[in-house]
Amino acid sequence: MNDNLIKVSVVGVGYWGPNIIRNFISNAHTSVDSICDIRSERIDAIRSIYPFLKSTRDYRELVHSSDNDLIAICTPVFTHYEIAREALLAGKHVLLTKPMTSTTEQAEELVNLSEKKGLKIFVDHTFMYHGAVKKMKELLLEGKIGDLYYFDSVRVNLGLFQHDVNVVWDLAPHDISIMYYLLDQYPESVIATGADHFGTKLEDMAYLTVYYPNNLIAHIHVNWLSPVKIRQTLIAGSKRMIVWDDNEPSEKVRIYDKGIEIVPTSDQVYDILIQYRTGDMYCPKIDTREALAVEVEDIVNSIQHGKTPISDGKVGLMIVKILEAAQYSIKHRGKEVKI
Amino acid sequence: MNDNLIKVSVVGVGYWGPNIIRNFISNAHTSVDSICDIRSERIDAIRSIYPFLKSTRDYRELVHSSDNDLIAICTPVFTHYEIAREALLAGKHVLLTKPMTSTTEQAEELVNLSEKKGLKIFVDHTFMYHGAVKKMKELLLEGKIGDLYYFDSVRVNLGLFQHDVNVVWDLAPHDISIMYYLLDQYPESVIATGADHFGTKLEDMAYLTVYYPNNLIAHIHVNWLSPVKIRQTLIAGSKRMIVWDDNEPSEKVRIYDKGIEIVPTSDQVYDILIQYRTGDMYCPKIDTREALAVEVEDIVNSIQHGKTPISDGKVGLMIVKILEAAQYSIKHRGKEVKI
Amino acid sequence: MNDNLIKVSVVGVGYWGPNIIRNFISNAHTSVDSICDIRSERIDAIRSIYPFLKSTRDYRELVHSSDNDLIAICTPVFTHYEIAREALLAGKHVLLTKPMTSTTEQAEELVNLSEKKGLKIFVDHTFMYHGAVKKMKELLLEGKIGDLYYFDSVRVNLGLFQHDVNVVWDLAPHDISIMYYLLDQYPESVIATGADHFGTKLEDMAYLTVYYPNNLIAHIHVNWLSPVKIRQTLIAGSKRMIVWDDNEPSEKVRIYDKGIEIVPTSDQVYDILIQYRTGDMYCPKIDTREALAVEVEDIVNSIQHGKTPISDGKVGLMIVKILEAAQYSIKHRGKEVKI
Amino acid sequence: MNDNLIKVSVVGVGYWGPNIIRNFISNAHTSVDSICDIRSERIDAIRSIYPFLKSTRDYRELVHSSDNDLIAICTPVFTHYEIAREALLAGKHVLLTKPMTSTTEQAEELVNLSEKKGLKIFVDHTFMYHGAVKKMKELLLEGKIGDLYYFDSVRVNLGLFQHDVNVVWDLAPHDISIMYYLLDQYPESVIATGADHFGTKLEDMAYLTVYYPNNLIAHIHVNWLSPVKIRQTLIAGSKRMIVWDDNEPSEKVRIYDKGIEIVPTSDQVYDILIQYRTGDMYCPKIDTREALAVEVEDIVNSIQHGKTPISDGKVGLMIVKILEAAQYSIKHRGKEVKI
Repeated sequence: MNDNLIKVSVVGVGYWGPNIIRNFISNAHTSVDSICDIRSERIDAIRSIYPFLKSTRDYRELVHSSDNDLIAICTPVFTHYEIAREALLAGKHVLLTKPMTSTTEQAEELVNLSEKKGLKIFVDHTFMYHGAVKKMKELLLEGKIGDLYYFDSVRVNLGLFQHDVNVVWDLAPHDISIMYYLLDQYPESVIATGADHFGTKLEDMAYLTVYYPNNLIAHIHVNWLSPVKIRQTLIAGSKRMIVWDDNEPSEKVRIYDKGIEIVPTSDQVYDILIQYRTGDMYCPKIDTREALAVEVEDIVNSIQHGKTPISDGKVGLMIVKILEAAQYSIKHRGKEVKI
Repeated sequence: MNDNLIKVSVVGVGYWGPNIIRNFISNAHTSVDSICDIRSERIDAIRSIYPFLKSTRDYRELVHSSDNDLIAICTPVFTHYEIAREALLAGKHVLLTKPMTSTTEQAEELVNLSEKKGLKIFVDHTFMYHGAVKKMKELLLEGKIGDLYYFDSVRVNLGLFQHDVNVVWDLAPHDISIMYYLLDQYPESVIATGADHFGTKLEDMAYLTVYYPNNLIAHIHVNWLSPVKIRQTLIAGSKRMIVWDDNEPSEKVRIYDKGIEIVPTSDQVYDILIQYRTGDMYCPKIDTREALAVEVEDIVNSIQHGKTPISDGKVGLMIVKILEAAQYSIKHRGKEVKI
Repeated sequence: MNDNLIKVSVVGVGYWGPNIIRNFISNAHTSVDSICDIRSERIDAIRSIYPFLKSTRDYRELVHSSDNDLIAICTPVFTHYEIAREALLAGKHVLLTKPMTSTTEQAEELVNLSEKKGLKIFVDHTFMYHGAVKKMKELLLEGKIGDLYYFDSVRVNLGLFQHDVNVVWDLAPHDISIMYYLLDQYPESVIATGADHFGTKLEDMAYLTVYYPNNLIAHIHVNWLSPVKIRQTLIAGSKRMIVWDDNEPSEKVRIYDKGIEIVPTSDQVYDILIQYRTGDMYCPKIDTREALAVEVEDIVNSIQHGKTPISDGKVGLMIVKILEAAQYSIKHRGKEVKI
Repeated sequence: MNDNLIKVSVVGVGYWGPNIIRNFISNAHTSVDSICDIRSERIDAIRSIYPFLKSTRDYRELVHSSDNDLIAICTPVFTHYEIAREALLAGKHVLLTKPMTSTTEQAEELVNLSEKKGLKIFVDHTFMYHGAVKKMKELLLEGKIGDLYYFDSVRVNLGLFQHDVNVVWDLAPHDISIMYYLLDQYPESVIATGADHFGTKLEDMAYLTVYYPNNLIAHIHVNWLSPVKIRQTLIAGSKRMIVWDDNEPSEKVRIYDKGIEIVPTSDQVYDILIQYRTGDMYCPKIDTREALAVEVEDIVNSIQHGKTPISDGKVGLMIVKILEAAQYSIKHRGKEVKI
């Protein structure tokens, strides 16, 4: 692949598709060629902004067109596997909105197929490209946080209820992708609980515990029924602790120079001595570029220069595995599911 | 029992005992007669403030004294059962700091013994007397919240590490007592996860899910390893939703006139219609009296007028049951434990 | 004027002009016909979005065109008077961005001219159409706040430095227009202080006190040199008090049922008795429509149905008077200037 | 004066006196000998806590006692001058609660008298010993903030109304003492505005501008009629900016690595180029000791080792001068008063 423009076709131009289009148009190395949606009013809406886009209601036309290199699939998750498979078979790279597929098997098959065909799969876990996450990743890699103790993420607000997936498949891919990226380890098992309050069989709130080796523990609370919007992640390590509050307009990431040390003592009643350490707090400057724009750069670097992208098919597969485990666990009252 | 002063002896005058003493002295219907602690420096510290108090290092002296009516037991939890049992056998009412006992069996035995002897057991679940909790209880009883969906409580901060109990036994009694009082139902089961990061076998963070009938779900996050102090409870019902933030200096309880309605439709793809409702928010004025002072009033009304106290031995027993279940579940990787 | 479309030409399509265009296009009773800017790159930028717009670099073409009814003037303030005068003379209604003109004389002349010609002047004090301001106006009109004590507004952040006007002419028109609308009285005098830290003769921060009759006092703090963004207004009356925090994502307006009563007593040393009253706080639901869209509706109702608009030339004139007084006061070290 | 205990007598044991007593008792180098109040119930209240204290209702007894070295005067401000003068004449050091006196003349006479007698005057401007102020002073001395642009302080809440002084004399001594200490320059003039809403002739809210040389400007907003409590100070310099929010439970002082640079350019229309600089924010760890305890240390070091205290009579005099100027300015509608 040379430095020519990467031409993208976008399937599904409802809620998220327009952002995908805008960012592929903005990037100097990519262009958008055509769009597809089964709803003609969505096509009209997009073409009123970008009149130069070709359009169709049949995704197969795009997949088999000779004018594009990458198919961006922004449709409901239950359609991902079929469209992506057909695109890969037709020799196209694919970008899938999160979550990658409805099942682990589908994700594995797509990863295998892409490797066989020498093509790329990208999964749009946008938060993995967020300036705050990038900054936290740097801090972790530099050893500033020390040995990790836990990751705790709360993502709650009022609605939007989805009709085809529960709150775990809707919101938790964000937290799981961030968790997976930052902790950078293979989880052991998942225990999840939750409830459906409207008889839809789709949980509107859920709690996931993810066990990692060495007493590292992660927990995610996702909820469509909260009166207030909370986007808060706590990460604690042996050296420092982080609070990421994505609702904060400016100081989103706070690094606390706080910790605890346990000193063995000879005292019989109180056989350990706890020492607290508290110091300064600081908020590093965060890259404020739109995460999706950074993601498109990563896609370009992957296709044009062979760089491994941050969020590829293997990452997408891992996240589907955890989602599936969480789903099973919820339906079985918190039964532990090994990953 | 007539309207004479209720005379109290306090066993254990470390961290919490002084508050107990101060409130029993302040109430017009109670007095403090004597104190006990195995540490003579604690006795000296208290007597420098209240020189009129009798003191001893042997709790048996207080228990068998003829000068008191109520023994307030503010010692470590593993000593509660033995002291309380001896006090009840000696014909004294008892007040126990939370949690009531180390095991369900001990709590049951104390409840049975108190009933046999016609004596009262009070458990100092102070938050059950907090103005914010009282206000929320009123709102629930008035039907303002509607059918309950969930209770979600976060109680995290840096330390204090306890040496004899884990974070569940230390912090969760607060949340469980509030949950139990507000939800006013018998829970079905508990699923808990957590981790110990310092090799002490005492978890420093834990997550509890408590299942109730009718898809009501409760969740509690307690944590000694958080860089920030969070004291936030969300309660959602079919009519309104509550956020209680105990860190807020003034507007602690917020009532949101928000909700969701699900309307069945004939549309085949999207077979339900979700309707959001958002309205005003208001913060009711809260009783700002010290919770412990209200609790002492409740104790007086119970002993002098036979009123059932908000936090009696049966409540204390229930909370120990849930704690024990949570403890078992954590040690067995989130295994569901029926209550 | 009948119910036909009101056709608008927009002069100046830099920072704010595009919002004016978008809102006049969105309203069903208005359309945009043409635009003007001396910078051809700005014209190109707008026409890439709205290719149907006619354009010119000479505002006289628009003013004397027979295709429009209203000239929207979004140019730097020092050009307002000249363009507006020419438009009125050409028989066009005008909309001016804030502040209306550079001097009171100019504003008076435009008001007189418009009355003579039977035309309308609108001044784009957008905040007068903000949902929060509308709600506060309602509360004041309903008597919920009681007799007014004060209005205190803080509008500070880091830059944007303007090159032709100081911070008073840049930011204070917002606060003064809100103050004038809510207090609904004629101010007595202005006292202003401020400082210029970069030798530009343009103050980068300023404090305005506006005296009203009956001990009502208003104060405005505007500042381009603040590390944090604050948008907070306090309004207190004899019955209730309001805090409007425009940075809050949802609960912007808070009504406090708090107050003070002074009761004369016979005590000689302390000859008055102060009684505090504190009650509930509530946050009313606010109209979240874009203020500019509501403003365009008001313009339509004025032109088509003769309704007096909230922000007309007389309001604009009043605000220029106060700005001019503040400017004079700052340059004379807080000398009181009668209005 | 040797290293023997400094013996203190306290005149006035109402609201603040008990804190003075407690801190002089706690310090190893000071003791409290006796107290005075015209209200016998206040004496009883104090002696119930500290039964060893001698007491009297006549301050002259304390002043002329041979048992004390320092007279702490915690009475209403209109009595300060008379009591302090008598104490100095009797050879005693004096500590006065803020503000030092009711007039500049009184303060000057006391300073002169103390110098003549070789005695010390301390004024209890407690905030000058606050950990946050100490930290900001360090940052300023280290040059971290650069050339100062402004000091802006807001201190508002709902009452306590005072009966003998207005809000300026009640609250502004805090802000003025902090301002004077941190800016460390002689102010040029004061312009103040304010209002009295209850016919008491005592302003319940006020705004003070203090002009300093070199375009440095300070502003103080004090208010007894605010529905919310705000304690916020902004300080900006050429290198960094500070926000001190005393309501924050932990991160009270925030240092923003933000600023503005003005670069002259040759562009004719926009003749200056503004460059913004934004970087990290950090919250330094603050000394959390009680400010009054640090103040007592300073008093000890002054009396025992001749160290110049942070808040001596000259500081107190300066603050009275500014208060008096502000008072005059308010009563004359913002007339500038030279200091």
